[in-house]
Amino acid sequence: MTTDQQPRGPVDSSRVPRFAGPATFARLPRLDEVGGRTDIAVVGVPFDSGVSYRPGARFGGNAVREASRLLRPYNPAQDASPFALAQVADAGDIAANPFDIHEAVEAVEAAAGDLLDTGARLMTLGGDHTIALPLLRAVARRHGPVALLHFDAHLDTWDTYFGAEYTHGTPFRRAVEEGILDTEALCHVGTRGPLYGKQDLTDDAKMGFGIVTSADVMRRGVDEVADQLRQRIGGRPLYVSIDIDVLDPAHAPGTGTPEAGGLTSRELLEILRGLAGCNLVSADLVEVAPAYDHAEITSVAASHTAYELTTLMARRIAEERA
Amino acid sequence: MTTDQQPRGPVDSSRVPRFAGPATFARLPRLDEVGGRTDIAVVGVPFDSGVSYRPGARFGGNAVREASRLLRPYNPAQDASPFALAQVADAGDIAANPFDIHEAVEAVEAAAGDLLDTGARLMTLGGDHTIALPLLRAVARRHGPVALLHFDAHLDTWDTYFGAEYTHGTPFRRAVEEGILDTEALCHVGTRGPLYGKQDLTDDAKMGFGIVTSADVMRRGVDEVADQLRQRIGGRPLYVSIDIDVLDPAHAPGTGTPEAGGLTSRELLEILRGLAGCNLVSADLVEVAPAYDHAEITSVAASHTAYELTTLMARRIAEERA
Amino acid sequence: MTTDQQPRGPVDSSRVPRFAGPATFARLPRLDEVGGRTDIAVVGVPFDSGVSYRPGARFGGNAVREASRLLRPYNPAQDASPFALAQVADAGDIAANPFDIHEAVEAVEAAAGDLLDTGARLMTLGGDHTIALPLLRAVARRHGPVALLHFDAHLDTWDTYFGAEYTHGTPFRRAVEEGILDTEALCHVGTRGPLYGKQDLTDDAKMGFGIVTSADVMRRGVDEVADQLRQRIGGRPLYVSIDIDVLDPAHAPGTGTPEAGGLTSRELLEILRGLAGCNLVSADLVEVAPAYDHAEITSVAASHTAYELTTLMARRIAEERA
Amino acid sequence: MTTDQQPRGPVDSSRVPRFAGPATFARLPRLDEVGGRTDIAVVGVPFDSGVSYRPGARFGGNAVREASRLLRPYNPAQDASPFALAQVADAGDIAANPFDIHEAVEAVEAAAGDLLDTGARLMTLGGDHTIALPLLRAVARRHGPVALLHFDAHLDTWDTYFGAEYTHGTPFRRAVEEGILDTEALCHVGTRGPLYGKQDLTDDAKMGFGIVTSADVMRRGVDEVADQLRQRIGGRPLYVSIDIDVLDPAHAPGTGTPEAGGLTSRELLEILRGLAGCNLVSADLVEVAPAYDHAEITSVAASHTAYELTTLMARRIAEERA
Amino acid sequence: MTTDQQPRGPVDSSRVPRFAGPATFARLPRLDEVGGRTDIAVVGVPFDSGVSYRPGARFGGNAVREASRLLRPYNPAQDASPFALAQVADAGDIAANPFDIHEAVEAVEAAAGDLLDTGARLMTLGGDHTIALPLLRAVARRHGPVALLHFDAHLDTWDTYFGAEYTHGTPFRRAVEEGILDTEALCHVGTRGPLYGKQDLTDDAKMGFGIVTSADVMRRGVDEVADQLRQRIGGRPLYVSIDIDVLDPAHAPGTGTPEAGGLTSRELLEILRGLAGCNLVSADLVEVAPAYDHAEITSVAASHTAYELTTLMARRIAEERA
Amino acid sequence: MTTDQQPRGPVDSSRVPRFAGPATFARLPRLDEVGGRTDIAVVGVPFDSGVSYRPGARFGGNAVREASRLLRPYNPAQDASPFALAQVADAGDIAANPFDIHEAVEAVEAAAGDLLDTGARLMTLGGDHTIALPLLRAVARRHGPVALLHFDAHLDTWDTYFGAEYTHGTPFRRAVEEGILDTEALCHVGTRGPLYGKQDLTDDAKMGFGIVTSADVMRRGVDEVADQLRQRIGGRPLYVSIDIDVLDPAHAPGTGTPEAGGLTSRELLEILRGLAGCNLVSADLVEVAPAYDHAEITSVAASHTAYELTTLMARRIAEERA
Repeated sequence: MTTDQQPRGPVDSSRVPRFAGPATFARLPRLDEVGGRTDIAVVGVPFDSGVSYRPGARFGGNAVREASRLLRPYNPAQDASPFALAQVADAGDIAANPFDIHEAVEAVEAAAGDLLDTGARLMTLGGDHTIALPLLRAVARRHGPVALLHFDAHLDTWDTYFGAEYTHGTPFRRAVEEGILDTEALCHVGTRGPLYGKQDLTDDAKMGFGIVTSADVMRRGVDEVADQLRQRIGGRPLYVSIDIDVLDPAHAPGTGTPEAGGLTSRELLEILRGLAGCNLVSADLVEVAPAYDHAEITSVAASHTAYELTTLMARRIAEERA
Repeated sequence: MTTDQQPRGPVDSSRVPRFAGPATFARLPRLDEVGGRTDIAVVGVPFDSGVSYRPGARFGGNAVREASRLLRPYNPAQDASPFALAQVADAGDIAANPFDIHEAVEAVEAAAGDLLDTGARLMTLGGDHTIALPLLRAVARRHGPVALLHFDAHLDTWDTYFGAEYTHGTPFRRAVEEGILDTEALCHVGTRGPLYGKQDLTDDAKMGFGIVTSADVMRRGVDEVADQLRQRIGGRPLYVSIDIDVLDPAHAPGTGTPEAGGLTSRELLEILRGLAGCNLVSADLVEVAPAYDHAEITSVAASHTAYELTTLMARRIAEERA
Repeated sequence: MTTDQQPRGPVDSSRVPRFAGPATFARLPRLDEVGGRTDIAVVGVPFDSGVSYRPGARFGGNAVREASRLLRPYNPAQDASPFALAQVADAGDIAANPFDIHEAVEAVEAAAGDLLDTGARLMTLGGDHTIALPLLRAVARRHGPVALLHFDAHLDTWDTYFGAEYTHGTPFRRAVEEGILDTEALCHVGTRGPLYGKQDLTDDAKMGFGIVTSADVMRRGVDEVADQLRQRIGGRPLYVSIDIDVLDPAHAPGTGTPEAGGLTSRELLEILRGLAGCNLVSADLVEVAPAYDHAEITSVAASHTAYELTTLMARRIAEERA
Repeated sequence: MTTDQQPRGPVDSSRVPRFAGPATFARLPRLDEVGGRTDIAVVGVPFDSGVSYRPGARFGGNAVREASRLLRPYNPAQDASPFALAQVADAGDIAANPFDIHEAVEAVEAAAGDLLDTGARLMTLGGDHTIALPLLRAVARRHGPVALLHFDAHLDTWDTYFGAEYTHGTPFRRAVEEGILDTEALCHVGTRGPLYGKQDLTDDAKMGFGIVTSADVMRRGVDEVADQLRQRIGGRPLYVSIDIDVLDPAHAPGTGTPEAGGLTSRELLEILRGLAGCNLVSADLVEVAPAYDHAEITSVAASHTAYELTTLMARRIAEERA
Repeated sequence: MTTDQQPRGPVDSSRVPRFAGPATFARLPRLDEVGGRTDIAVVGVPFDSGVSYRPGARFGGNAVREASRLLRPYNPAQDASPFALAQVADAGDIAANPFDIHEAVEAVEAAAGDLLDTGARLMTLGGDHTIALPLLRAVARRHGPVALLHFDAHLDTWDTYFGAEYTHGTPFRRAVEEGILDTEALCHVGTRGPLYGKQDLTDDAKMGFGIVTSADVMRRGVDEVADQLRQRIGGRPLYVSIDIDVLDPAHAPGTGTPEAGGLTSRELLEILRGLAGCNLVSADLVEVAPAYDHAEITSVAASHTAYELTTLMARRIAEERA
Repeated sequence: MTTDQQPRGPVDSSRVPRFAGPATFARLPRLDEVGGRTDIAVVGVPFDSGVSYRPGARFGGNAVREASRLLRPYNPAQDASPFALAQVADAGDIAANPFDIHEAVEAVEAAAGDLLDTGARLMTLGGDHTIALPLLRAVARRHGPVALLHFDAHLDTWDTYFGAEYTHGTPFRRAVEEGILDTEALCHVGTRGPLYGKQDLTDDAKMGFGIVTSADVMRRGVDEVADQLRQRIGGRPLYVSIDIDVLDPAHAPGTGTPEAGGLTSRELLEILRGLAGCNLVSADLVEVAPAYDHAEITSVAASHTAYELTTLMARRIAEERA
């Protein structure tokens, strides 16, 4: 939507029950229904061939869409109606070859680039974390090196697994190596659990990452954490990458490499809300593995997370237009 | 599709993985993608306010669609490619008021009638069995009283529950009363389990129903049963209504009123295949309650069932066109 | 129990294992076993035809009873033995027509009124939130307009759904309209998640409701919140209505409209304990949908919640008698 | 019921929904509600301290009762209304010490004996198979040595486990040793799966047991099997003991020692129906372990099994009275 | 074991409970515990990067081992004690690169070859069906082209997916192309469900495969099917490859591409038992995906299947030694 | 490991995927692989015959091992590599008679004593809490009366159940009676939920126990709690016993007697980390009941808990050696 027309919003839940109809994100229109252009494109990447433990995130995007039936158009926590502030549309899935990681990475980069080229910001639903690399490549091609907030139980800055350079544990090391991140403004949030060695931390710090552990969030509180993150980011173009395993397994059992001691969904949502004002240019939400979920608690949390991110982008778009 | 053009088939699974993209039935095009006209319309009715025990069939249609991602275009058991023989399209869901059964019944009848008026045959995905009544009304308005094969653990010819005339236990009594069934050609298949009284059987027989119990299927074998059913039906326009609880709970745990001692999915599929040659004008598949399902075994069985029914209709359409 | 005799308590777990015998609430006597009169009646309302998303709360009351086998007679958090302070008995279920919401609402009001007329306070186990309206009507007929603490993820002050005035999203608007609430002392606790529009909040405030969101509870702490609530309520007769979805889906997956970012069970229990001294005249606990529960975590949390409420009532009764 | 009065039947499902009210077996009256005397007593034994693998059958009886809400009063397969032919009542649970097998065995024998002494036949819901021994002792004290049909995946005629003589794998060896079985009329039905050694079979045969394996049932068909069993039993007083693991894990996942290759629930029910005319004096149904069940498929199958057994007893009682 | 010494059998379950200790297959010794040589090596291949739909079979082998705790040493259905007839040992897992299918295929071929070179027959636990190709390569290098019985819902003779030649849908086409199968003795058993086109069948037949569908098994019975298979195979060295999805989803929900209408576990086990006398040189059992299993019903069925195959091999070894 | 040689660590996850190979704790070597001597022995006790509600903890130890595949060798929260500081090995399971509690208690005491006699510290994986008594006996025989930190929802200082003195609710009363605890340094952490009577608390206090309730942890914060505990313990030899039900059911559904309102896994892990410097001589982690777990959230939390305890012991060992 680049004109003055009113964005097309979700299906009216008072006329079509929320359990009816196809499950686009938040029951929003498909990209083709809004003429192929949108301010924010919600796009799926059903790819999980980069996982090192439990696979299944290939079904994650559609699970999040299914859970997003419960979303409504007004976000009181941010006091904003994101789907009225900007056109948000569901761009469907990017087809990625499950048998060839390199080919998949290229396909994701190309398709994401095409969407970004229309002026859209991306809210990507994974898929495993491997996809953050091609997404960042596409984003950086448009915006230059970006600030990165990375919510995850893990660092994801390992080098290789079994000789593979592109896996769900390595995207941010690759991204740093490729110069597509602004190394002045990188931070992990929510990390915890054992590592292979202390060197993991040293390497990570050398790449420029700050760390706010899950225990830090408990001790400092969400407001202090959000303030700190906002300061680190400043006005830079920001990419937010959220591995759902940043949440405690109690809040997100449906994921591939769970670690005890994680964030609550309330903490995650509040920190994200605290990022208001940042220039969020795109985001991803990955590693939802529905085979391990129960009663959609993981995908409900994920859908709310994507909703907050979408609201942040919509507000920014509205501000820029104002 | 009323012209000579080739039907538009499912998404190509060698290019887009079957776990990617939206879950239309069998990954077929939406009705709007084929110009609003189709030979066979797969349509959902997410309504379950007529159930007497476990609710949840409101989510059934979309669960069957999700499971139908695994279907492929050639049916070796019937030696036919249904989506090439006829245009099959997904017509989405009929919105039905969950708080008012009468209003819902009317909405289903109207919407089904509209689809039938375009010349389409209906493959309806419930929803609970209440919806068979408005579907039969719409079908009878077009075809006159129809033969009915009713696969179910239960008779569904009870009179009222709690004074309600429209529930999932009563559609076929209502249909007989309304004269929209051809009482020369009515049969239950797969019934079993306790009843309220012997009168239930007497009433049912008076309405004209024959019964092939689940134990009969085991004793006689599927071929003999199918032969018998075909003979009873002859050339009459036929409606097939399948409550997924006709299957044993082992094969269909995801349903509202399970009864032990049911059919295997292999028996159900083989009996349906044995109906080849009948003039199947429309069908429904109801009572899939995904909250009680596990690993999609119920919805996989349901999707295969709907696939066989669709194939029967497609073959008939092709024969009529030939 | 209106005489001096000792209340009849639960089955002795040192003689009959807790997994044995029928599942009355907390293994307490049935109402008929205590002569048809009791100080506090635990009563089920297996009705869920007012739900807008996942149904199944019709099985909630019995699930809570089953989980309540684990309760014991002394409550250290309140330093009270509720079943010794007052007679608590299980009054069974109120039969409500699943096919006619109006009829069901009337039946609940009548049956609740009958119990209240015996002098009992009610601890009602839903069922969906629709039932709060008839319960409040019955309570108000006895006590006049009551203060209301409403623990829920949602406001439940919407107007109508699909034209229906009685649903699980509308009871408190109806109650305000009917004048059965004391609009000086109304508060939602634990709300969060998206709304249909900002007007939802405006309308809600106009009706007199205060709001303590789930994030507020995290920021302020349970003691400050409880203090505030107690002050707002003062000595008014108080009704507490708890939708189990006030808890985070991690703590209560078994519910119909889950929202991420909710309370922990520890927070809910502590806030309730902080209400000691209030004149709690009756309470309900609704929206437990066992089909979505796992390992009874929802119904265990619900049973503990009902236990705290019961203790509050028993202490009040004992104080009044002293 | 020893007088001419009409038996008191189940709750009327057209007035109280089947999901409402307490879960006595088939919603029948409690024993105390029919004056403490009944023709057939359904009694639970929540004891599972004799299991060698997965525990949990202590919750089995109540799970079967819960599933039995779906039963109705007329059994078309046997053309009989069991609850009208004889008084059937729910006698609650026998409390058995979970920490001392010997004490538990004695308690079960005593309590079962008390019920039998009132003239009742027992339909016992386990618990694990250990309880068959005290039940048979009590039955034999009344009827002398009884014929035994034992439906199970396993022989349960092993000697000891870890030195324990009373476990769920040994009851029938103990019973033979104690002379409480009529060794002319003993048969296992449905056995399959590996044994410890060929000696297991030799020992078993020496005790007098015949064997109809699960594969035999598939090859010969249920009618031939039932005929054979009826002939072996003749007019002897008969005890039927059913371990739910006689069913294939597909039909009964909720059990402690599952073996692939089992009976279908349809086969089991049909064989039982084929025992009409036998003098069934009591029966048990054991080893339902709900923690491993899904959507009640095991307990639904178990409740139907208990229903067929109850019908056989009720018909016999009616014949004896005629 | 190539000497006369007695094979070392499983842990004694009368001294160490079956739920205790590490889960080697059937609680048998590890390969290193029997000196690195064994007659039959049970080996896992935790690899599932070749799957086209639900991943997770990487956890399959260990799930089957866990379920195999329930196996006992005497197989009455074959009247043999396999672990006494031959040394059977658990050779652990073959490490295969999850990120590179070609490298994984080579690793499996090499490791399998090493085991075969010691004289062992292989009972391989997958993993997905991709691994059948390297296993067949290794077997053929030792035995020349082998007869193949392939139990599966699918043909697995497709050409490529997404350009990948090695996937779980293509192993047998590759094997035929490579000349490592004896095309005079190839048969699929249990196939069913839709295909991409009739050409799939034509291609398959051209490669030399016979087909016994799941419906054929129901119609002809297991004995006739087994006879036919034995005749087709004759004295040829035989490889049996079993995709657990040959079972109906009711019997094997825990798999990646379920198809309704499958075999029962009883049918599968009986057909395998009917292969006695064949020269079974190695076998695999693949596609157990535990994330989709419930209460181990899939892995129990799989463990019994592997047990029958092991017994066939042990009997053959004993015969050859006699 | 009593020599200077480097401890043998876990399998290298970059060469053998974490989902491959046998599930020893943290993929560490077996005790026999390190020559039968180790600094810290991780040992299982698959025994649950002392439970009063849901059984199943007999499968707990192996479930924790399975989940521990996700652990890595460096613990950043304690800045230590435990498996390099000390030899940690998996000592397998202690076989305990499931049918005789006394015999089992003796077997556990003897086997634990044997391990302690080699100089090892024990990290025991239960099993139910009954086993804490024999473990404490063995520990006290070596170290004299020990300080005890007991993390649990319950006091476990009850006297007897059904006359049984050894159950999962009584170990610490027995231990106090036997004089094997240092009554100056006993504390429960995380208790909550109803008791049988106020006397439970009085008795408990008389035995010398302090109590930090779950609500106390929320109010005071983990750091203050850990400080207090460290002060109470001082330099005494310390035993830590953790019932996984100290966690909220949201974090640990897989347990036998869940209580709402518990600790988060983050709180538990942080308190344990705060015990650094204490002389932890042995520890147990009990009551993981996998049949009630989902997606391993309980066993993942348990494996992280055991990992923190192991790290505390390893650091102490390294300090003592330094």
